[in-house]
Amino acid sequence: MDRMNRLRDVMGERGVEHLWVEASVGFHYLTGHKPISVERTMGLLVSRAGRTKLVTPAMHAEELVGIADEVFDWTDSTGPETATAAVLEDVDVLHVQGSLLASAWYALADAKPGLRLALDPGCVASLREHKDSHELEALRSAAALADETALWIATLDVTTHTERSLRGAIQARFLGLGPMPWEPLVATGANASMPHYEGGDSPIAPDRPLLCDFGAATDGYWSDITRVFFPQSTAPEVERAYETVCAAYDAALAVLAPGVPCGEVDAAARKVITDAGMGDAFIHRTGHGVGLEIHEPPYLHGGNESPLEVGHVFSIEPGVYFPGRFGLRFENVIYMGDNGAEELNRAPRMLRLG
Amino acid sequence: MDRMNRLRDVMGERGVEHLWVEASVGFHYLTGHKPISVERTMGLLVSRAGRTKLVTPAMHAEELVGIADEVFDWTDSTGPETATAAVLEDVDVLHVQGSLLASAWYALADAKPGLRLALDPGCVASLREHKDSHELEALRSAAALADETALWIATLDVTTHTERSLRGAIQARFLGLGPMPWEPLVATGANASMPHYEGGDSPIAPDRPLLCDFGAATDGYWSDITRVFFPQSTAPEVERAYETVCAAYDAALAVLAPGVPCGEVDAAARKVITDAGMGDAFIHRTGHGVGLEIHEPPYLHGGNESPLEVGHVFSIEPGVYFPGRFGLRFENVIYMGDNGAEELNRAPRMLRLG
Repeated sequence: MDRMNRLRDVMGERGVEHLWVEASVGFHYLTGHKPISVERTMGLLVSRAGRTKLVTPAMHAEELVGIADEVFDWTDSTGPETATAAVLEDVDVLHVQGSLLASAWYALADAKPGLRLALDPGCVASLREHKDSHELEALRSAAALADETALWIATLDVTTHTERSLRGAIQARFLGLGPMPWEPLVATGANASMPHYEGGDSPIAPDRPLLCDFGAATDGYWSDITRVFFPQSTAPEVERAYETVCAAYDAALAVLAPGVPCGEVDAAARKVITDAGMGDAFIHRTGHGVGLEIHEPPYLHGGNESPLEVGHVFSIEPGVYFPGRFGLRFENVIYMGDNGAEELNRAPRMLRLG
Repeated sequence: MDRMNRLRDVMGERGVEHLWVEASVGFHYLTGHKPISVERTMGLLVSRAGRTKLVTPAMHAEELVGIADEVFDWTDSTGPETATAAVLEDVDVLHVQGSLLASAWYALADAKPGLRLALDPGCVASLREHKDSHELEALRSAAALADETALWIATLDVTTHTERSLRGAIQARFLGLGPMPWEPLVATGANASMPHYEGGDSPIAPDRPLLCDFGAATDGYWSDITRVFFPQSTAPEVERAYETVCAAYDAALAVLAPGVPCGEVDAAARKVITDAGMGDAFIHRTGHGVGLEIHEPPYLHGGNESPLEVGHVFSIEPGVYFPGRFGLRFENVIYMGDNGAEELNRAPRMLRLG
């Protein structure tokens, strides 16, 4: 498989001889198989110069035929220890993904006394950061469904909803269209002043801004959009703050180019908000990568010197938060292409409560 | 908080001085706060004899007021390293939960050179295993909604559905009722011979058994039920196999009592299926704990000598799988009470396709 060969190339460049890819999105990315997240030991040993070896509960063997050169299965009566030890027989240093659970980390350490474990220096992540055309198509489709859902929210009579019931309605709409949603954030009025407030039993106030942050996966690839839905009349200070947030978004978009450090994108957005006197209210980073995970590299925050590269897909989402008063955020997902940045989301900036 | 005090007692019994509880269901259990799963360092240091210390991104500080004696917050411009090092100042040995990500494990190790990290010997898990009356009520409610959904599936015209569309319909139904569902498994005909087959684009065959495994969370506590929906007429070998699976379930239920080793429950179910000549087709364990996680301790599998205890909540779900032919499973969630076992699920054993 092409991705497996490219992984071996990257392992060579980064001095990684043996990599353990447990049941995870990395496993999904490399094998095409979405593993069910369970407590049973499952993983793929990828060796730069050797055969791939799969450890799996026997119950999954039928589903995983063909993804590795050798299969070491185990049952509850044998336990996973023997299979794991067999796979690690010729391994002295094993790199593991950041997503590995500590329980599995200690199980690997116990399976082979003297084994040295180390953190994967981004071998799998560096492949996943660069989206190919198939992945980009899935991300475009996911973004288009999120846009449609934003427009649909603007048609609702929100006075029939609490934050919680609207969260359910957004998810049900995605499921009706096909993709699996993540749990939306829905915040009415001052609740939006907490950037990750999920939503509670507050009735949605038709005369206050309504912040919705939501998305869903198409073929495993996520969308992530935030829109604020405004009442017909808004306080001048809220209007001005929203104009500032949108200007910060535009400033970030304007500096996007391959080779630009991620931190500079954050700085461009932050400067606009700081210059408007609201710097203290922009309390999070400007964006994060989006792909098989809703949050993944690259991270667009101050101090990140890593450059943007062609194939990166990430959010830009400046926001301002005034505790107890109001909160605003504007978020689209962006593709960094050869010919500049492409906004995958197209929903209007100004949406009104229906 | 009562749970925090009980945790300190257990830490004393098990010789744990300092425990790190990262943003996780354990954190939710101890603090009542459901942390959003993000890439930012967040966690609670619980010391047997000292003050609790929270490391959190500053953006979450408003939401987390009051859960720890001291708060060490950080921003993207400071990074989490200083806050983490300050919290670990007096710590020599730090126990971590099995759910901690390796990326966070290495971040803790890097924050304090010489720090010894070890796996939590089940301090948090041992509390979480014993459900209190409030938790039991949530689990009962979750189970009742799963039962209703099973009856609802039996009313559907499945010929209008593929496996995938039925998965979405089941989720949408839960969302309409309130709780957040996990992704159901839906398998028509021979697809059910893979025990964790999720469901694909196969149209649902009205003349073949349909296996559905699903559930949803009420106040964070999950349900988990499997029912097979049968056509009006079923092959005799399938009928006989289903009778065997149900008899295995009954045999497991009959041995449940506080003090009985988990492995004996598995053995009781397995004996029935083995005696019927289908032992090789029962390729998974008999059950797993259910609570804030869909799979959690106790695990009911061969070789597990840990005893059942009052307060345990777990599935019993024997099944048989004949590759390419058919698969059957019957699953309820059970509460181990003072006065014996209580089946939280009440949906009928024999459900027919509508």
